[in-house]
Formats: sequence, structure tokens, C-alpha cells
Amino acid sequence: MASLRARALSGLPELRAGDDLAQMIADAAQRDEPLRDGRLVVIAHKAVSKCEGAVVTLAGVHPSERALELAAQAAAAGQQRDPRAIQVVLDESVAIVRAERGVLVCRTRHGFVCANAGVDASNSADRETLILLPRDPDGSARRIRARLRELTGASVAVLVTDSFGRAWRHGQLDVAIGLAGMQPLDDWRGRTDSGGMQLRATWLAVADAAGAAAELVRAKDSREPVVIVDGLQRYLSDDDGPGAAALLRPLDEDMFR
Amino acid sequence: MASLRARALSGLPELRAGDDLAQMIADAAQRDEPLRDGRLVVIAHKAVSKCEGAVVTLAGVHPSERALELAAQAAAAGQQRDPRAIQVVLDESVAIVRAERGVLVCRTRHGFVCANAGVDASNSADRETLILLPRDPDGSARRIRARLRELTGASVAVLVTDSFGRAWRHGQLDVAIGLAGMQPLDDWRGRTDSGGMQLRATWLAVADAAGAAAELVRAKDSREPVVIVDGLQRYLSDDDGPGAAALLRPLDEDMFR
Repeated sequence: MASLRARALSGLPELRAGDDLAQMIADAAQRDEPLRDGRLVVIAHKAVSKCEGAVVTLAGVHPSERALELAAQAAAAGQQRDPRAIQVVLDESVAIVRAERGVLVCRTRHGFVCANAGVDASNSADRETLILLPRDPDGSARRIRARLRELTGASVAVLVTDSFGRAWRHGQLDVAIGLAGMQPLDDWRGRTDSGGMQLRATWLAVADAAGAAAELVRAKDSREPVVIVDGLQRYLSDDDGPGAAALLRPLDEDMFR
Repeated sequence: MASLRARALSGLPELRAGDDLAQMIADAAQRDEPLRDGRLVVIAHKAVSKCEGAVVTLAGVHPSERALELAAQAAAAGQQRDPRAIQVVLDESVAIVRAERGVLVCRTRHGFVCANAGVDASNSADRETLILLPRDPDGSARRIRARLRELTGASVAVLVTDSFGRAWRHGQLDVAIGLAGMQPLDDWRGRTDSGGMQLRATWLAVADAAGAAAELVRAKDSREPVVIVDGLQRYLSDDDGPGAAALLRPLDEDMFR
């Protein structure tokens, strides 16, 4: 019987720029249950961004005309937004998909479509500092994976997540933005089921599903950015694999928006 | 340390119209690990649809002009589709969101937006029979939950899922289409995090996340439509709750498509 277990990793210290996140994860795991081959280490992106210094201090930001316009639009809709924070969102975006009621849905430089280009004030040390998405989340995942192997000897996969809103449905889900050592998609297209029929739901976003599973054990208000998942060995690979970038749907193929 | 465990339930027999699905789940669980209070029972919708007789035999379907047109469009795009099957999809839909390259993205009568209105040939007894979504998936979840309580004495939650494609991202994820005894969304809006900051990602679609977690342990080609999840007690409720219908985002609030 297939089974999956996900556990939040406790005991991580407060993170700062320059910290060796892999070392901190290895240490915290050592105190609890050491990392073993075949585990998936799921990391909320803020932990990665903080350690990589992917933060912006508002004091140094000068809002453009466009940022001032969007702040005025937001204010007219009853949402007070700092035009400097909007400028940071614009700087992280290659396109604004929607701008309504004080909310910006953006396509980021990585190609992700999410609210405010993933820019986030929460969990930062103060309101004057914004946390960005990692510059290269797949690269971050690969580096952390290699470092964990160096430190512990264990071959694990690493998944970096953020919480994204979805079309058609309320609420956010944690999805994969960086990945190493795991296949992002499980492709069953063309295979037949136990009754010999072609399978319809045949291309499963297993990395996103793993992010969602991890979200269920991590309290959003606590310092538990890391979740260890066991039971996904069949999706893990020796090499780093194509990363979370392989989950991005080209615009011209997108029928679901 | 918070943890989650998900296990596929083995030993379910082939399902037929009129079967008491709750009885079969209770029996299979009894042979393995009896159901206990606080568990979440996740059921792939096809199992529910088959037992409820939510199936259509193609022999009795007469395609409309519109179905014949769409079949011709699909054929021109290199996709052979039976116009009678397209008619069944149209009958299940209140709106066609997109019709391109032989794929129909539909809004179902329930309000779900998904490929082919959730109509599915796979796992049915033969190619002449299509499996529909349950008529009232929240009602199905409530009935199965009540029956499981009657049979086992255990207060569990019940989640009915289907695999949906998403905007912007490749691959499908299992999402909630029916729910009883669990809150669909975990609302953290307005709460502050451990550093006193307002949380951004504050409205989590926990029922969808649970569906995604269950998907990871259920082989798509096998007869394991049921997954038992432990560790979500804090999202479970004594009453049936608002169901999966509460996850539907009104069109005029949707900025993510």
C-alpha cells in the first residue's frame, strides 16, 4: 500500500542574509530525524530568499509614474498601498496581467503568474523590507540539494514553494517554483488504465501536489518553512532534472485562463 | 511537530451502479486499519459516479448540430472525437469556456471549470460508456460521511476529487469537488505572523491541498480510488460544513484567468 508522510521541521533559527540554509536544515534534521536518501525537502521560498539576500529596502526605492498611478487606483478602490512597494512589484514583473481593486496579478521574470509578482512583506524583519522570489529558484534548489548531500551524504530532492492564487477557484495553494532531484510532472499520456482504457487525467503535476501536501503541515504563522516528505521515491531522480520551470505553460497553449 | 500521513486503501472490489460505496470502504479499511475519528477519506469521483449510476451509454445519445460542428473542428485539428461524446459534454455544461484543438474547457452545471466538463471514458467498463461527475458531489460526500459513521461509529470527513488542468501551469492537480466534515478554506486574513506582520498568503485552499496530497499515493491506473489521510484534524468539523461549492470563485472576482 502506497503511503506518504509529511512532517514540519522544527528548530530552525531565524534566517538572515548569508546564512547557509542547507546547514541549518541538516542540523535541525539531525536533532530530530536525520535526512535519508529518497526524502523530499520542501522549503517555503521566503527562507531561501532571506538567506540569498533577495530583499529590497523601501527607503531606497523611487516610485515611477506608473507606480504612483497604480497606487492612486488602489486608493480609489479603498486599498492603501505604498507606491514604493508597487514599484518593487513592477521591477519584478515582465507583464501586469490584471490590476484591479488594489491587487496586481503579474507575470514574473521567471514566468510565474501570481499576485504582486511574489513580493511579500510578511515574515520580513520590518515593514520597510520586502522579500522577493529567489532570482533563480531552480538554481537555489540545485545548490541546496548539492550542499545537503555534501553535509549529510543523503541524496534528497529539494522543492521551493510559494502560495499562488488560482483561476476559477478561491484560496491559494503552495506550488513549485524551484525543484531539483524530482520530476515535476508524471506523464501517463498514452498509457492505459487497469481496464485497458486510455487515461484522461494523465499528466500529473506531482511537484505542485507535493508542495500542497507540505502546506498542510506547516503553520503559516510559525517559523517552520521546511517540511520533510517521505514516500515520493518513485518521482525522485539521481540528476537534478528539468526543474519547476518545466511546469510553466506557454501562453499560446493555455486554454484554462 | 505537525505531520500528515496519506495511505491508499487497497482491496476495494470493482464498483457498479447501486453499490454501497461507504460499506465497501468500511470493509476494506476493516481488513487493514479501521477508520478512526479525525481521518479524512478522499475518494476519486469516478468511484462515486459509478456507484450512483452517473454514467451515459453512447448508444442512446443523438449529437446536436453543435456537437457535430465541434467534432468537425476537432477532426480538422487532427483529433478524432465521437460527436456523441461531445454531446454528453455539452449536456453537462452551462458554458463552453474554450473549444480549441479538439479540447473543450467547460463550466459544468456545478460551476466547475475543467476539460470536457469532467466527462471521462477511462476506467469505465467499456468505451461505449462515459462517466460523468456526480450530480451533487457535496451531497454525495455528506451521504457517504453519514453512512460511514453509521457503519463504523467513526466521525470522519469525506472529500470527493477530480483531476483538473490549471491556468498558467502544465499538468493536472486533484481538487475538491465534494466535501463534508472539513473546512474547504483556512482563512488567515487579518491575522499576523510570528513577527507581527500581516500575512499575505492567508486564505489556503486546504481541501484542494488534501486532494493533491492524496493524488500522490494513488496510482492512476490501479483500482485505488480511496486514500485515507491522517493529521488534518484541525480542519475537520462536527457539522458537514459549506462543502466544496465554497471553493468556487465568482466570475466577477476572478483576476487569475
